[in-house]
Amino acid sequence: MSDGFDPASLRYDAQGLVAAVAQQHDTGEVLMLAWMNRDAVAETLRTGRACYFSRSRNRLWRKGETSGQVQELVELRVDCDADAVLLLVNQTGVACHTGRRSCFFTAVRDGRAVEIAAPERDPNELYGG
Amino acid sequence: MSDGFDPASLRYDAQGLVAAVAQQHDTGEVLMLAWMNRDAVAETLRTGRACYFSRSRNRLWRKGETSGQVQELVELRVDCDADAVLLLVNQTGVACHTGRRSCFFTAVRDGRAVEIAAPERDPNELYGG
Repeated sequence: MSDGFDPASLRYDAQGLVAAVAQQHDTGEVLMLAWMNRDAVAETLRTGRACYFSRSRNRLWRKGETSGQVQELVELRVDCDADAVLLLVNQTGVACHTGRRSCFFTAVRDGRAVEIAAPERDPNELYGG
Repeated sequence: MSDGFDPASLRYDAQGLVAAVAQQHDTGEVLMLAWMNRDAVAETLRTGRACYFSRSRNRLWRKGETSGQVQELVELRVDCDADAVLLLVNQTGVACHTGRRSCFFTAVRDGRAVEIAAPERDPNELYGG
């Protein structure tokens, strides 16, 4: 099956958003979870770089625009009920604003929260602290 | 760093939910995206099986309770701002209600929506159609 894809066809929530999971395309590492509105989906597909919607700043968030830690899009996938997308990307440097490769660096082990990854970059260097 | 983990410590949204990504622990395949409330997080950790919160049914959703397609928890991880979790799981059979292994079976390629995986199981058989 093959149909023309229209970003408007996704099932956006009341805030106009879908959840977006970014995964490093070759290693399978889940890098982050963010949000996209229709314009973010359209821009990501058009430019080949991940663009999200920042709920805190209430505007498009071109990933890496400040930090340089961009995500080149390899493929965008849509889930069965069209309210979530999976971005297979090639992450430059680190995805997390803490300087870690992935935002999911806290694991629950034996009932305790354990930090399983250390920063690879200094956030002050990424964001000009 | 190691601290006791309290499910109440996550940053739930106005509906009391966090986004939850399920990933097959050994292959890295992203299986699905769902939602968890505090009770779902607590039950998942206590039982070692993925339990979500169904927004459509407005109740806890013990994954596989009808279909038998359960997810054994390998590890739960929390993201940097504590409003999303990653479940590393061992998926029995298929994650998607369509009978496919992953819910993310539609890819956007050359501007078109392409189905990249076929059902491995008959949904009628899983849900008693």
